[in-house]
Amino acid sequence: MKTALIQQPFNIDKETTRAKTVEMVSKAAQLGAELVVLQELHQGPYFCQYESTDLFGLAEGYEEDIVFWSEIAKKDSVVLVTSLFEKRAPGLYHNTAVVFEKDGSVAGKYRKMHIPDDPGFYEKFYFAPGDLGFEPIDTSVGRLGVLVCWDQWYPEAARLMALRGAEVLIYPTAIGWFDADSEDEKRRQRDAWITVQRGHAVANGLPLIAVNRVGFEKDKSGVLDGIRFWGSSFVCGPQGEIIAQASEEKEEILFCDIDLARSEEVRRWWPFLRDRRIDAYEGLLKRFID
Amino acid sequence: MKTALIQQPFNIDKETTRAKTVEMVSKAAQLGAELVVLQELHQGPYFCQYESTDLFGLAEGYEEDIVFWSEIAKKDSVVLVTSLFEKRAPGLYHNTAVVFEKDGSVAGKYRKMHIPDDPGFYEKFYFAPGDLGFEPIDTSVGRLGVLVCWDQWYPEAARLMALRGAEVLIYPTAIGWFDADSEDEKRRQRDAWITVQRGHAVANGLPLIAVNRVGFEKDKSGVLDGIRFWGSSFVCGPQGEIIAQASEEKEEILFCDIDLARSEEVRRWWPFLRDRRIDAYEGLLKRFID
Repeated sequence: MKTALIQQPFNIDKETTRAKTVEMVSKAAQLGAELVVLQELHQGPYFCQYESTDLFGLAEGYEEDIVFWSEIAKKDSVVLVTSLFEKRAPGLYHNTAVVFEKDGSVAGKYRKMHIPDDPGFYEKFYFAPGDLGFEPIDTSVGRLGVLVCWDQWYPEAARLMALRGAEVLIYPTAIGWFDADSEDEKRRQRDAWITVQRGHAVANGLPLIAVNRVGFEKDKSGVLDGIRFWGSSFVCGPQGEIIAQASEEKEEILFCDIDLARSEEVRRWWPFLRDRRIDAYEGLLKRFID
Repeated sequence: MKTALIQQPFNIDKETTRAKTVEMVSKAAQLGAELVVLQELHQGPYFCQYESTDLFGLAEGYEEDIVFWSEIAKKDSVVLVTSLFEKRAPGLYHNTAVVFEKDGSVAGKYRKMHIPDDPGFYEKFYFAPGDLGFEPIDTSVGRLGVLVCWDQWYPEAARLMALRGAEVLIYPTAIGWFDADSEDEKRRQRDAWITVQRGHAVANGLPLIAVNRVGFEKDKSGVLDGIRFWGSSFVCGPQGEIIAQASEEKEEILFCDIDLARSEEVRRWWPFLRDRRIDAYEGLLKRFID
């Protein structure tokens, strides 16, 4: 599965940023990519750094966005994983990954299920928790387990996609550092982010794609300085082995040829799904067991 | 929590191996360890390389083993995590971690829940699946989430221990390479083993201790050459950061001072437990969802 990950900074406004994305998707397609994955909320800034009712306006374009990216997928004949701000009804919004087929049709969508809320990442204000569950999306290149950002810290999400037959796990993401953090703390955070996802690949015997944004985005509220997104988009194989990784600071297209057949081989050696103790997992349905 | 991991090869017979373990536990205690963790089935060879009814005889000493290790824990005044071959009833055996308190009393036990069965690791023949669930064990040094080897590939096991209030995850282990594997494959396997466990630490905001055996053990059945256990025992913190790691080939006591209070700090930054979608996890109780 010839794959391209588009890692880029937000640039001035939606039109300029989108134009750059379109150019990169087109280049990726020309160089043979069949699957192209974009980063989280790739059309605009990471607007969740502060809470403002005005910013819901960014979701007004959702229907037009669907048409727009559908045309790009069709023009370049690629399966395209986008990440959009969905307006579903007045006052009801989601953080939604929409996957387009090579002919421009919508293959499926996934509404982010786990919603974070930390200083600088006020997503619970903007996004209602997803209600489509953890359902893989069938496409001409494979059955895609599309999840979004905060989901990547949850083994449950990856496992449910695997149990529903996903052939690859895919995470559009927006994560970065605060410049005020120590270098040690920054390393620990980035390593933890890579490690937990590689762990999902291992536990499920699946390849995994994570696409993160890059560059600095100022906190316009002035409360914090802003977030420096750490890039580092990567692809790992079903043993968690890194097979491609982008830089921490640069805009780039990361190409990777993913061998979906390898999962069968790895799962024969490490048949983890066989031995799950489903008779003893009921506690997983509780918040805490006390 | 001053901790010592005892990584050692099987040496000639039970008595010789045990004498060495006792010496190392004593040394660890003298140097300040309050918690000492032994590797999987540390009293003997890793006997599951082939299936033989005679080998159930190794479990006949279980009651005596309990007395033996109780006395060691008491003598050295340490909390001691052992891994024993339990005879529970005629024809019924478990792979059981028994934890002793500093006064020699049994703090609790854990019967291995996930049982592997691969060429060279015929554990389903020897061990009935555990029936004590994923329950942490309270001790004077903390609430210990003791799991065993194959469990380490299952995020469900780590999560359940965390949900039941474990303060640290602990894995006595016996894992190694076949010499015939390529160097690349060996690296991938060892890295996957480390990565998936570090992932559990990250996902649950808990420190983690893994103690693996070391050295080569011949397959006496002659079917395979044998297993070269890769050591590499390690401790990581609640962001998955490695804080101590042993060699791949040497017998050693690995010391590590674990700060249990750090989990509270890390979980405030990364409050993963808060956002779990327990309304959408029911599929985890199924073998596969088709």
